Amino acid sequence: MFQSFDSTSTPQFGRERVAAIRARFDDLGIDGFLIPRADEYQGEYVPKSAERLSWLTGFTGSAGIALITRSTAIVFVDGRYVTQLAEQVDGSVFTGGDLVNEPPHLWLAKHAPKGFRLGIDPWLHGGAEVKKLAKAVSEIGGTIVVLDENPLDKTWTDRPAEPMGAVTVQQEAHAGKPANEKIAEIAAGLKAKDVSAALIADPSSVAWIFNIRGADVPHTPHPLSRALITADGKAELFIDERKLGAEALGHLKPLAALHAPASLTARIAVHANDGARILVDPELTALALGHAIEAAGGTVVEGPDPARLPRAVKNAVELAGSADAHVQDGVAMVDFLAWLDRSQPGSLTEIQAVKALEAARARVGQSMQNPLRDVSFDTIAGAGEHAAIMHYRVTSESDRTIDDGELFLIDSGAQYVNGTTDITRTVAIGTVPEDRRRFFTLVLKGMIAISTARFPKGTRGCDLDPLARIALWKAGADFAHGTGHGVGSYLSVHEGPQRISRLATQELLPGMILSNEPGYYRPGHYGIRIENLIFVREAEDVAGGDMAMRSFETLTWCPIDRRLVVPALLTADELEWLNAYHGTVREKLSPLITDAAVKAWLEEATAPITA
Amino acid sequence: MFQSFDSTSTPQFGRERVAAIRARFDDLGIDGFLIPRADEYQGEYVPKSAERLSWLTGFTGSAGIALITRSTAIVFVDGRYVTQLAEQVDGSVFTGGDLVNEPPHLWLAKHAPKGFRLGIDPWLHGGAEVKKLAKAVSEIGGTIVVLDENPLDKTWTDRPAEPMGAVTVQQEAHAGKPANEKIAEIAAGLKAKDVSAALIADPSSVAWIFNIRGADVPHTPHPLSRALITADGKAELFIDERKLGAEALGHLKPLAALHAPASLTARIAVHANDGARILVDPELTALALGHAIEAAGGTVVEGPDPARLPRAVKNAVELAGSADAHVQDGVAMVDFLAWLDRSQPGSLTEIQAVKALEAARARVGQSMQNPLRDVSFDTIAGAGEHAAIMHYRVTSESDRTIDDGELFLIDSGAQYVNGTTDITRTVAIGTVPEDRRRFFTLVLKGMIAISTARFPKGTRGCDLDPLARIALWKAGADFAHGTGHGVGSYLSVHEGPQRISRLATQELLPGMILSNEPGYYRPGHYGIRIENLIFVREAEDVAGGDMAMRSFETLTWCPIDRRLVVPALLTADELEWLNAYHGTVREKLSPLITDAAVKAWLEEATAPITA
Repeated sequence: MFQSFDSTSTPQFGRERVAAIRARFDDLGIDGFLIPRADEYQGEYVPKSAERLSWLTGFTGSAGIALITRSTAIVFVDGRYVTQLAEQVDGSVFTGGDLVNEPPHLWLAKHAPKGFRLGIDPWLHGGAEVKKLAKAVSEIGGTIVVLDENPLDKTWTDRPAEPMGAVTVQQEAHAGKPANEKIAEIAAGLKAKDVSAALIADPSSVAWIFNIRGADVPHTPHPLSRALITADGKAELFIDERKLGAEALGHLKPLAALHAPASLTARIAVHANDGARILVDPELTALALGHAIEAAGGTVVEGPDPARLPRAVKNAVELAGSADAHVQDGVAMVDFLAWLDRSQPGSLTEIQAVKALEAARARVGQSMQNPLRDVSFDTIAGAGEHAAIMHYRVTSESDRTIDDGELFLIDSGAQYVNGTTDITRTVAIGTVPEDRRRFFTLVLKGMIAISTARFPKGTRGCDLDPLARIALWKAGADFAHGTGHGVGSYLSVHEGPQRISRLATQELLPGMILSNEPGYYRPGHYGIRIENLIFVREAEDVAGGDMAMRSFETLTWCPIDRRLVVPALLTADELEWLNAYHGTVREKLSPLITDAAVKAWLEEATAPITA
Repeated sequence: MFQSFDSTSTPQFGRERVAAIRARFDDLGIDGFLIPRADEYQGEYVPKSAERLSWLTGFTGSAGIALITRSTAIVFVDGRYVTQLAEQVDGSVFTGGDLVNEPPHLWLAKHAPKGFRLGIDPWLHGGAEVKKLAKAVSEIGGTIVVLDENPLDKTWTDRPAEPMGAVTVQQEAHAGKPANEKIAEIAAGLKAKDVSAALIADPSSVAWIFNIRGADVPHTPHPLSRALITADGKAELFIDERKLGAEALGHLKPLAALHAPASLTARIAVHANDGARILVDPELTALALGHAIEAAGGTVVEGPDPARLPRAVKNAVELAGSADAHVQDGVAMVDFLAWLDRSQPGSLTEIQAVKALEAARARVGQSMQNPLRDVSFDTIAGAGEHAAIMHYRVTSESDRTIDDGELFLIDSGAQYVNGTTDITRTVAIGTVPEDRRRFFTLVLKGMIAISTARFPKGTRGCDLDPLARIALWKAGADFAHGTGHGVGSYLSVHEGPQRISRLATQELLPGMILSNEPGYYRPGHYGIRIENLIFVREAEDVAGGDMAMRSFETLTWCPIDRRLVVPALLTADELEWLNAYHGTVREKLSPLITDAAVKAWLEEATAPITA
């Protein structure tokens, strides 16, 4: 299993650990200290050795930040983690903060005493974040104190070792472009920007540039590493050599000078002398690295990570690989859904479902000789009221049976060497009440609206987001998350800059892979989400039209529960899309399914619906 | 008539006038000078006495800016005016510039010689615009030279007198709120912002705050004037007293100290001493005024005009007035459309149509005892290929017959004391080709999508814009303008900050009036636009929903040409909306129509369509 169902929270140490940190305040000359969830690589997934927030507070959610001051200890989380926070931390030590409406910088500006000195570990915060914090504390006459030591790390005596996941080479058959070409293209871009080098701080960018993958953190197969690329095309890679076997070394040595991670600041000093201009992405790069450039006399030029956009725009090989991976993933999903349907309502629990799905992926991976490398995130499997919790992670404590008359929402994904998947299906267990079917159909309308959209050059994700919502809006409802996020190519399942949301100003470019996942949630009752992955492409011309358009092509092939569709709520075009989609699902998956019962289930699950 | 069909261009003086301006360059220490279309009040409509751009170049379009350098003279216009520019200016003196893709600041950064000194008249440019220009010329080592004299004005010896349009009082029965309350509310906002006063530079804001209207410029009934409002609720109004009759004086004297426009800088100096913070909208305020504040030791606090948002959010009285005005306007439109339909194809010209429509509005205004005060803009009346020119203004030279088999697009509006209207209808002359009907129906789908939208609190204009386009996008088409603009209450027909467009980040608030006007244009062939005015309101709750929504209510009542609708392209909901709309049109207008033939025409024009 690539996932566990433990609640690993250890709230009982919170009091003493907070006290130990506070005990250092006077020596460090600070009145408060921030402990983010992110690690030195500003990552979404962090290794055990960097799980500072959960070590301190007991909170194990995937987003949050703690602020310890002399008088208070606050853990800021977003709406999805409010309940989990209350369960996991010692309420006599920590209070909850609102990460969305009053994040630390706003909290400090409002509540901190005048002259507040905020200590930060410059390895754990990006430059853009620190700028925001500095502005906020300056409003109350305070200052940021950039610390040389992290008072939490000093206290954390039984800290696990850093991960040493083996690096593999991402072969050109999957990457579609040799690493030296990628380096040359980035170098040309740096020259055009008149900078002498770029600091690549995002391990996913490093993995993409050098065509390598790793195993340092859960679910995202990048090795923790950083790189320097110069405008004249030289590359330096900062990675622990213990992660590199013979193949990886043979692949990397012609591409880059290899250095230990700890030598990065020294190498930055070499590159940054004489006022050299070095490109740094302030959203993705630890403040300490920008400081290192400036300390050496260089100039920090802020701009987007030069690998970010090329990585988001997949090439033909990556898209073909993803399409194959999705067909394979669809076979596993069908295997799982057919099994779920055969089971008696009330006989299975959420954890059993998660295990069965992962087992199906592993089994199909074996038989198709393309093994499941990991799940792309912890499976969200919620029955009944659990489905209304958008990022529900089932644990042994929360596990419950999936009962008759309920909706069961399962949002999962896989990492295969040829692609990353992410799919959500919401299925009926027995006969469900009519209002669930109505909202399922309204969510489906939004999902079809995105799937069938055409749009001109220049269209951004924010321009399409409302199309996924208007059917719900008309019914007096909405969903409190974006419609879609970018997805990597055997990399992170959450990838920027592409996304579909209210704030998504990145133009949607051909080759970008995105999720399309509208939903609807009735807290305490039920939840619905339907998710396919799609990618942007140039659309075929329409007869009578006068301009080129872009459109989406679907990657995910898996039945959408017909029993939950109210045909009368669909337009003729929507119904036609659904039937055509199911036709393609059948066509692509059926030949790969050997079990007669599963084949028969697929046949029925994809039969045309009539109005 | 409130509009003329002359081409008033006088291009023959361009050469000598440019030479006269250049002759002042050495004395003024400049290498170039900008002549914008806007006047000292940064207005969309300018009085004859401020039509500097057309006086100099001959170009009479509503947007543009000339740049005179030692070696070149460029008139920057947007796409809609390229043809008109070529026709109106002396091509041996002026070249055309691209106002959208390479406006003056970009042109200067790219083409001006190093060290370029750009002269500007600080009364003719807002602070935000000058900031952009200053940044551009600084990139080439140049500077902005803020001039005390305008070299064009020095040369313009036969300049018309400034307008002295009589000021009228906008009665509370139309304004819905007394001016002293508006002043008190603005003052409270200034106190909360910690500024001591606000400079109100937009004449429409002045008109709204003081409940007055004017007659200084065409089509927008505001008096050219400015005001100062202090945080303790005192008001000063800067307006020529010759515009004020007894009623206006009686109304204004209790509200404000009245000053001549020329004394504004002196009064600013009084308010700005001791470093007082004064609120200035940099988009709407001449640079000279910000300089006056700073010269007197005050601090310019940049922020939105405090009247702008309250003015956009109409109160119940204004909305009721607008609804009445629109019913009256609908009667005139029906009168006109019935007459147009009775006429033989090929027997009428565009100008005859414009005249007939204005006459109908005047006639109905008389009979309903609510006279037509002005048209709200020059009517756009285009037959055939003229309809593809988005801002076509018919002149005696361009006038043509409206022929059989063509589409005729007429976009017009009226100013009544109780409201401003703006409506576009595209009608069939005889039998038109099928592709026109198809695109008409696609445009109609977009227009219905906006009309029927519901949306949560926080929704911005940019979130709705794509709903007006998606049907066209799917057909490989689009339109190159925003979907809607804000509309004033017996004020400007183009009002901010509310609008529906790709860049419209203002939240749509209950009470805002907007246009809803998608279109489609085939240059050289035909053009389609359908426009209603709508306003934002709190929507009724939908059964089964779980959150409050906002929606639009329609103001415009006038048949949409049924003969151009292809019912098969509409969904059941869309067809239902159209039939219901026509039912309401008939219900509201029919009782007000006396002419039996017109009544019969309306009956037929609003009969239900079946799928």
